[in-house]
Amino acid sequence: MTVARRGLLIILSSPSGAGKSTLAKRLRAWDDTLQFSVSATTRAPRPGEVDGKDYYFVSKDRFFAMVAEADMLEHAEVFGNHYGSPKGPVQEAIESGRDVLFDIDWQGAQQINNSSLAENVLSIFILPPSLTELHRRLVARGQDSEAVIAGRMQKSIEEIRHWAEYDYVLVNEDLERTAADLITIVRAERLRRHRQPQLVGQVRALEAQFGELI
Amino acid sequence: MTVARRGLLIILSSPSGAGKSTLAKRLRAWDDTLQFSVSATTRAPRPGEVDGKDYYFVSKDRFFAMVAEADMLEHAEVFGNHYGSPKGPVQEAIESGRDVLFDIDWQGAQQINNSSLAENVLSIFILPPSLTELHRRLVARGQDSEAVIAGRMQKSIEEIRHWAEYDYVLVNEDLERTAADLITIVRAERLRRHRQPQLVGQVRALEAQFGELI
Repeated sequence: MTVARRGLLIILSSPSGAGKSTLAKRLRAWDDTLQFSVSATTRAPRPGEVDGKDYYFVSKDRFFAMVAEADMLEHAEVFGNHYGSPKGPVQEAIESGRDVLFDIDWQGAQQINNSSLAENVLSIFILPPSLTELHRRLVARGQDSEAVIAGRMQKSIEEIRHWAEYDYVLVNEDLERTAADLITIVRAERLRRHRQPQLVGQVRALEAQFGELI
Repeated sequence: MTVARRGLLIILSSPSGAGKSTLAKRLRAWDDTLQFSVSATTRAPRPGEVDGKDYYFVSKDRFFAMVAEADMLEHAEVFGNHYGSPKGPVQEAIESGRDVLFDIDWQGAQQINNSSLAENVLSIFILPPSLTELHRRLVARGQDSEAVIAGRMQKSIEEIRHWAEYDYVLVNEDLERTAADLITIVRAERLRRHRQPQLVGQVRALEAQFGELI
């Protein structure tokens, strides 16, 4: 009998514009068994968004029923819409040894770190090398008022202030380097002794050999 | 001011014949700033052994004075000779941000895990895929009596029984693969948030930028 390792809940957080989505895609390209956690949301689908792929689009009633039944690993309200990570698909994936990737903010990370799946969490924070570039980009877009830009910058610095709650921190100065570091972290974490349940059988086999040889 | 990270005490343990020495050399070849912990011993030098490189050759009086002064991170007696890991060079290395590699058994690992430097320990156990090959090699040498061979096998299985006290476990089925995994582990561990003291300054700089931009 082979004992499958339990999968990891890999949490990636960062302020917007730090390269998180690209890095998540890189990780997925390296290991395509890794699955993204698809969020449930009460907001309406935008053109082109696919239910079950981009989001699970659910009613408010359904959303809060899931929260009440502890079927959400984490949830939050953003601009009047509700977002959450359904527990079912995550539980199923990690029990069959697949890792699940979460692209969530510090509030979601805190909730998952205090959930029943906390011991399988691997959390990584991506820091931007500077805020100047993010600010420059927001201004260059010319879409937003000064107040909106200030609000976005405020949200970024608030996210950054939670960097110390994560297991690993990467400063994304160079995308190639950061992607390699991210893959290195996931590879190493899978080699942790307590994440390799098959070792018990391995050692049992060595004990049996010892008994036969000596 | 740059804050250097503290170095790691990297402990490699395994039964003899599992490839540990080769793996330690591979790790060193990958990063030559990594230094081996040189043991002190009361046994006489063998031809070709260099004091301060292979061992620190010390008198029994000196050895026990070091133990009494808590200058040994770990020590043990093997066949009437004493061996130990002097703390001074290790302390100096890790305070200047260099990692130190320990090739020691489970008893030494336990002692270091209970020393004042425990929080900087990274421990890795190498398991052989089988005991048959080790036994075959001992018999093929034709040097040892059946009793001596049984004694060595006994020592191996006793070492193996402590596999569960290590942070990481690697089954050395393929040397190239195991060496790559070992390097992966060390690279990842250096990226742990609490091992990157420079991050505090990094975040402070982002806070200052935020203050200037908004």
